[in-house]
Amino acid sequence: MVIGTADLPESDGPEDRPTPAGNPAWLNDEELHFVRSRVPVLYVEAVPVRVDGLGKVTDVGLLLRSTPEGHLTRAFVSGRVRFGEPVREALFRHLENDLGPMAFPQMPSTLLPAQVAEYFPMPGISQFVDERQHAVSLVYVVPVTGSCNPRQDALEVTWMSPEDALADDMLSQLSGGRGALLRQVLGAVGC
Amino acid sequence: MVIGTADLPESDGPEDRPTPAGNPAWLNDEELHFVRSRVPVLYVEAVPVRVDGLGKVTDVGLLLRSTPEGHLTRAFVSGRVRFGEPVREALFRHLENDLGPMAFPQMPSTLLPAQVAEYFPMPGISQFVDERQHAVSLVYVVPVTGSCNPRQDALEVTWMSPEDALADDMLSQLSGGRGALLRQVLGAVGC
Amino acid sequence: MVIGTADLPESDGPEDRPTPAGNPAWLNDEELHFVRSRVPVLYVEAVPVRVDGLGKVTDVGLLLRSTPEGHLTRAFVSGRVRFGEPVREALFRHLENDLGPMAFPQMPSTLLPAQVAEYFPMPGISQFVDERQHAVSLVYVVPVTGSCNPRQDALEVTWMSPEDALADDMLSQLSGGRGALLRQVLGAVGC
Amino acid sequence: MVIGTADLPESDGPEDRPTPAGNPAWLNDEELHFVRSRVPVLYVEAVPVRVDGLGKVTDVGLLLRSTPEGHLTRAFVSGRVRFGEPVREALFRHLENDLGPMAFPQMPSTLLPAQVAEYFPMPGISQFVDERQHAVSLVYVVPVTGSCNPRQDALEVTWMSPEDALADDMLSQLSGGRGALLRQVLGAVGC
Repeated sequence: MVIGTADLPESDGPEDRPTPAGNPAWLNDEELHFVRSRVPVLYVEAVPVRVDGLGKVTDVGLLLRSTPEGHLTRAFVSGRVRFGEPVREALFRHLENDLGPMAFPQMPSTLLPAQVAEYFPMPGISQFVDERQHAVSLVYVVPVTGSCNPRQDALEVTWMSPEDALADDMLSQLSGGRGALLRQVLGAVGC
Repeated sequence: MVIGTADLPESDGPEDRPTPAGNPAWLNDEELHFVRSRVPVLYVEAVPVRVDGLGKVTDVGLLLRSTPEGHLTRAFVSGRVRFGEPVREALFRHLENDLGPMAFPQMPSTLLPAQVAEYFPMPGISQFVDERQHAVSLVYVVPVTGSCNPRQDALEVTWMSPEDALADDMLSQLSGGRGALLRQVLGAVGC
Repeated sequence: MVIGTADLPESDGPEDRPTPAGNPAWLNDEELHFVRSRVPVLYVEAVPVRVDGLGKVTDVGLLLRSTPEGHLTRAFVSGRVRFGEPVREALFRHLENDLGPMAFPQMPSTLLPAQVAEYFPMPGISQFVDERQHAVSLVYVVPVTGSCNPRQDALEVTWMSPEDALADDMLSQLSGGRGALLRQVLGAVGC
Repeated sequence: MVIGTADLPESDGPEDRPTPAGNPAWLNDEELHFVRSRVPVLYVEAVPVRVDGLGKVTDVGLLLRSTPEGHLTRAFVSGRVRFGEPVREALFRHLENDLGPMAFPQMPSTLLPAQVAEYFPMPGISQFVDERQHAVSLVYVVPVTGSCNPRQDALEVTWMSPEDALADDMLSQLSGGRGALLRQVLGAVGC
């Protein structure tokens, strides 16, 4: 599998670990390559936020990551939905994977996302680009109440005010066109 | 103020307590009567739910009330938005008023409601009727994590499975046509 | 009634025309003043858009208005919901009022708005300010398929690309903080 | 490919027609079988409706189909999203495929669906079952303004009032648990 230069390390697990025999939900590199070149891949993404006692968003969390080329980039919590895995479980798994087990996310009571984002490997089809694949992502804004300790490939979770998160400079640090996506989903929570 | 026979006691406070001098948000009976007969009145309503660790609704809470005539009726958390009061504060105030201070609601991070409900005093305009007024209500589904101790005019908060809440028999116990509304807002959370 | 310097002419009718006797939905100046100083006033707002054959927003329409002081300002379609008037009728009435009878809006099939906006006369409570009143507005994005001929107090409907509508310079021309609101509701339609 | 007894004929095309050489979006039977057994498959579904001049739903359209065993069943417009295909195009393609070219759907201006539905081949994981696959479906309510002429494998589009569509008898005729789904998405449009 060739990883495009703008790509992030896989946060998803299956493909960078040995495939356990007999689990149909895990794909080896060849299988993943086939899937990514032939069907849209379902993702969940989450923007972690902190809220005040009335539910109003006070802080937005963005992952800071280093690309294989050493560039710093901002990212959402993100990952594939596996075969047989409910969307809620995938969302929780990726939140735990990216924010650590003490983040205590308030999982949404509805599956309706804040936005549906389409990523294409070829530019110009939508606002969002993923060189690896055609992905369709259900994007949620998820309040977290605990402390976040990102996995090794994320350097930190940076918390900032909604205003700072929406500044042009910050939006441009998000990969794959997710600056526009962050604007859209924060809009849904009145930011 | 004449209360229609199907009406519930006011859960809202202002009108059944002495108006504090100088607070423009409180209306005396005459003022309330004027408002109710001349403009649509903005309400918030909430269906309290319990959710599992993944956010899925496991239980639905309905208030059990006794009408002035002694009929038992099911109700939502409900009440007016006051002058100068943000929607979030009104929602929190009515949740606390109807469920007690230990309910610990997870306030929504978005103002977008699960449904907008229109109540008219004259039948046939919408599904929903309120003999007292033309009201427009922002209806939310709100997870609560604590214990609920309803105010005196509500006999109890009855918790039931989504299936039981959606049974025809239960829906018909909700006043003002709110059976259809409960169906609609539980639909938004996948029930 | 004193109109604040930043205020737009009323697009709503009742208050700048003689009140017809016996119609409870119309308020004279004194009644309107009372309502505006004592209860939140329910509004509908609409951002007219043009869409392509697949529903994607291609153009955003903003009203260009002149304030009483002669300043140019951008505005949404906007107006009060009257007593006894369903939200859909209010939305259609204001669309027709502000865009003319040949705009042919595609009315939304759901009452769920793209955003709920709160305006307060006192600054600092929310992002949005209305010196005249505490207003709560259901904001819709409404595709129009015909030609728009604004009423006399709007100079024109300016059509522009979503990118141009979201430019900082354009957002700052919207009154009452509606620049942030435009960003939020265009986010809901993927712009 | 073994088709489960409760399954509907594919409305999607690729798999029951010869695969054109060189189009990565089309899957042959073996490839489709692989995909369906290893990753969640992205679908779009639509409930066609007729609306009045104010956008209110007046009629609901359900496809009447005959299963291979000769049972009559009710269905939504439904089908896969192909590799490289935007969600809007997939939705339009399936609407045209199932309703004919003269249906003139009013495509949604937002990608946000009325509901996200999860289908699993194994019962008990969600409300919805699809024996063929794990599918995740973005479900839209789509007003149509023209005349509907369903393809050969659908016997007709049956139009009925929202009340009739929501009757228990009708809901039970929908396959895969879509009775609950119809209730949920009609709830979003106030039915």
